[in-house]
Amino acid sequence: MIHGDTPVRLYELVLENGRSSSPYVWRVRYALAHKGIPFEPVPVGFTEIPAMFGGRFRTLPVIEHGGTMMNESWDIAEYLDRAFPDRPPLFATRGEYAAARLCDEWFANAIMRPLFAMYALDIHNAARPADRPYFRRSREERLKGQTLEAYTAERVAKRPAVRAALAPLRNQLGRFPFLGGGSPGYCDYVALGGFHWVASMSTLPLLAADDQVLRDWLERGFDLFGGAGRDARMQPLFE
Amino acid sequence: MIHGDTPVRLYELVLENGRSSSPYVWRVRYALAHKGIPFEPVPVGFTEIPAMFGGRFRTLPVIEHGGTMMNESWDIAEYLDRAFPDRPPLFATRGEYAAARLCDEWFANAIMRPLFAMYALDIHNAARPADRPYFRRSREERLKGQTLEAYTAERVAKRPAVRAALAPLRNQLGRFPFLGGGSPGYCDYVALGGFHWVASMSTLPLLAADDQVLRDWLERGFDLFGGAGRDARMQPLFE
Repeated sequence: MIHGDTPVRLYELVLENGRSSSPYVWRVRYALAHKGIPFEPVPVGFTEIPAMFGGRFRTLPVIEHGGTMMNESWDIAEYLDRAFPDRPPLFATRGEYAAARLCDEWFANAIMRPLFAMYALDIHNAARPADRPYFRRSREERLKGQTLEAYTAERVAKRPAVRAALAPLRNQLGRFPFLGGGSPGYCDYVALGGFHWVASMSTLPLLAADDQVLRDWLERGFDLFGGAGRDARMQPLFE
Repeated sequence: MIHGDTPVRLYELVLENGRSSSPYVWRVRYALAHKGIPFEPVPVGFTEIPAMFGGRFRTLPVIEHGGTMMNESWDIAEYLDRAFPDRPPLFATRGEYAAARLCDEWFANAIMRPLFAMYALDIHNAARPADRPYFRRSREERLKGQTLEAYTAERVAKRPAVRAALAPLRNQLGRFPFLGGGSPGYCDYVALGGFHWVASMSTLPLLAADDQVLRDWLERGFDLFGGAGRDARMQPLFE
């Protein structure tokens, strides 16, 4: 039997400066905060993952709670709702859960994919020196041999299309304070995680200075749960 | 006091063949069917709208229920949940409502907008002859003087990008039978409405023959509520 007062440990992917960059780590951080669950963060570099878990997990985040260890942010989110039923739910209905998964698919396809084509080299350069060769090798393999430099070379030219693709968020935020409506929901955490990722390593501000609707929402989001998402090491998101 | 047995009338935008083309009409049709509310359809051409409502409404759908008349599909959807509280809800929680609005924003931006650039001329050609000059004039004005012919000329070249932009739907439907999860939700009706729109007038099949995941979902969607969405006048959606 797992009790609500059993401590939770969160294994986080970190950069050289110690800040977590992973958008999947960030959504789990928000999920834990949403439910009011304190946790102990454990920093892990890209290349430390295999040894740390005896080969069991190849991606972070991983959470440890009593005898339970698991990765995959969606499995973790569902686990948290099951294991802490007396805390505020991440998904009040199965419809909310399905909608959050679809939100994640839209955000991954329309926003995160083009963002990777802008920031892949920045991630490399911000990673722990020991992790950089692995990061470059594995990502350039996925890019069919294209270098990170070549892949991100046109990133300033790609930026307007990414800004335009954020229109659905702006439209929703013209109607509600959060993507989830009157209060923040998992879709907010998915999107905030993406912006934390950019803010963890960006050397090119993503958003226009006058993008007030996104600016206001990001401020509200970073202020959530006592400003748990705030960090002096964050790079500017706005020009 | 409005009773559940007061008849509902749905004013629908129709093409020359009498089929409704509007994606907003289709989502309201599905919303009514979801709640098990019978309705009387009233066909209306583009240019008949102003006179029919004494200038009160400029867009369809419009519903009439007792003394209530309203347009705007989102206002109608919320009205239906209020006026028929004993019927299955379209939005079980405020979170589900907000998520459906965000789904609509994604679908409008990533799918419907590029679809209009493929099918604007087909809509014109399928409209009632009396409506065509109005449709051309109003749409070409929005296109800053570009003709419908020029606007849609490269549509075959644009088709692969639209198919790629549908990846979030395919991913979600690899996980659940419906976009809304285990049972159809308003986001399904939004997307099905978009496909009904294309099927109402397309002269170029949108989807690849082997797009089995979308094919299966469209079959399930068109079969909903006794096949209420089926129509012998539908054009093929698949190559």
